[in-house]
Amino acid sequence: MPELRKDPITSRWVIIATERAARPSDYAVERELPRTEPCPLCPGNESMTPPEVLAFREHNSPANAPGWWVRCVPNKYPALASGHAGRSGVGIYDAMNGVGRHEVIVECPEHEANLATMAVEQIEEILWAYRDRHQRLAGVENLRYVLIFKNHGRAAGATLEHPHSQLIATPIVPRAVAEKIEGAKAYYGFRERCVWCDVVAQDRADGERVVAENERFIALTPFASRFPFETWVMPRRHHASFASIERAEIGELAALLSLVMRRMHTALADPPYNFILQTAPVVFEREREPYFHWHIEVVPRLTSIAGFEWGSGMYINPTIPEDAARILRETSA
Amino acid sequence: MPELRKDPITSRWVIIATERAARPSDYAVERELPRTEPCPLCPGNESMTPPEVLAFREHNSPANAPGWWVRCVPNKYPALASGHAGRSGVGIYDAMNGVGRHEVIVECPEHEANLATMAVEQIEEILWAYRDRHQRLAGVENLRYVLIFKNHGRAAGATLEHPHSQLIATPIVPRAVAEKIEGAKAYYGFRERCVWCDVVAQDRADGERVVAENERFIALTPFASRFPFETWVMPRRHHASFASIERAEIGELAALLSLVMRRMHTALADPPYNFILQTAPVVFEREREPYFHWHIEVVPRLTSIAGFEWGSGMYINPTIPEDAARILRETSA
Repeated sequence: MPELRKDPITSRWVIIATERAARPSDYAVERELPRTEPCPLCPGNESMTPPEVLAFREHNSPANAPGWWVRCVPNKYPALASGHAGRSGVGIYDAMNGVGRHEVIVECPEHEANLATMAVEQIEEILWAYRDRHQRLAGVENLRYVLIFKNHGRAAGATLEHPHSQLIATPIVPRAVAEKIEGAKAYYGFRERCVWCDVVAQDRADGERVVAENERFIALTPFASRFPFETWVMPRRHHASFASIERAEIGELAALLSLVMRRMHTALADPPYNFILQTAPVVFEREREPYFHWHIEVVPRLTSIAGFEWGSGMYINPTIPEDAARILRETSA
Repeated sequence: MPELRKDPITSRWVIIATERAARPSDYAVERELPRTEPCPLCPGNESMTPPEVLAFREHNSPANAPGWWVRCVPNKYPALASGHAGRSGVGIYDAMNGVGRHEVIVECPEHEANLATMAVEQIEEILWAYRDRHQRLAGVENLRYVLIFKNHGRAAGATLEHPHSQLIATPIVPRAVAEKIEGAKAYYGFRERCVWCDVVAQDRADGERVVAENERFIALTPFASRFPFETWVMPRRHHASFASIERAEIGELAALLSLVMRRMHTALADPPYNFILQTAPVVFEREREPYFHWHIEVVPRLTSIAGFEWGSGMYINPTIPEDAARILRETSA
């Protein structure tokens, strides 16, 4: 019989469809990547993007020229743009100017690289870029949230092959984050403990959903995973905001992320995936919020989202999370 | 500058990304349909499915044999199944047996048919099957919601080519429906009017989001459409539950649905789409709920859902809803 499991943060129910139990080889997905010639993110083509807003580059190399190892530029076709934060009513409806930022974080100069195969040191550099842009944009008026994410592979929505992450800063706290805050606040109100801290404690005690851990970070497949092989990576100790991450932590995070990405790459044959950094809204930052705990969601895109998911807001996951964790644990990387 | 629009029911903000303004020809999607040989939904292959739970068939034709024009069977690989509704705690987590129903509604005997090209009378028959199964399952203990939906085309999650809809009955009110109820209740509490009734009035007054209407039903592109060419079809007058639909209404609904599907088929070249019937939970049915208003969402799948959408719960729609309505209005079908 299938099992329904409830996410302790959002109270969302997930159907763990054991009748359809699926192993990695049961998922057939589009793997081919789109080709763009010439690649606007490759060194030498810097003029194809808007001017860089941040670059880690060789000393004395000029801006918007080769010599960088991580480079951030505004998106050429931004979903949100700088401007005046006007709000208005339209009859019974509400509208707002689409103010915000939309940036591309080019993760490395090499077009064919992959988070799963690159050096841990390069992943550290990418994380520093995430932190720097997050800190910078957190101070901008009218921006309430900074969402950093990555789409890898065509089935995950990537439109460029060159490894890159994206950042969208929004004038509102996005609904998915607001839902987590609300759920975590309710949990804290009831138990006076952070729900993610409880998840870490429970999953370390049970053991069967832990993919890997090191001194400061843990990777686990959540009890109510919405997607097969969904994996969360988060600090073992309470931290509300990624923006306050420190040097020693960056090193450990990069090491664990690298391990998780390598294992997924091997176990699932370079799956398409989305990678989402969920941190506290910028207004929280100076408050050491006791109920929000930043985390990264890595979501392989192996199943399709169809009418049932849209209509219900529920998900059908054909891989038991404990099986997914075991498979990832046992994959040598 | 892009515009943010708020859905008046769920309070979800949508980014209408005018910088990326997209016309029908800008969307490239997978159109090829999966092939299964032999087709388990074709007449003559009735033994390939579990025994039928409903069939509209020729007088005296035996069950589970040809002679039907609409046929409902349990899904062979159900996401939810009959059984005992046990609930349990697992440490800090909550789980529930996956009780429910998962059925397939075979829409017609013809393998190559399409909702956009079939006769209006056949669509009426499909709607009767929806109503009959909804009424039947609404009376079953432990079932709180009956969700009827359709996935058309590979990019929309279809795995069989033969025209079919699905029904999943759940032991909880699904989150997406609960959110609508909550939003509509809050609106009703404030204004003492149904929010969908207000949407109908506003959009009929504005005119620019109306795709088509007849005596009893209206088709419109919602102000805060999450997806390009998203279209809602609903009764012009207040009705909480689809299950109470009557003969004259079925005829008018089939006629309007047929027109909308034909126009989408022409304007977007047979797009993949999800079709979702959103009606009141079964517990509401005898109450003539003043704030819920049943409706059908038709969602062409032209854009991909990627990291931003997962991380934020927001959507980026590159087609202005008023443009989508105009294009659909001006398409001859």
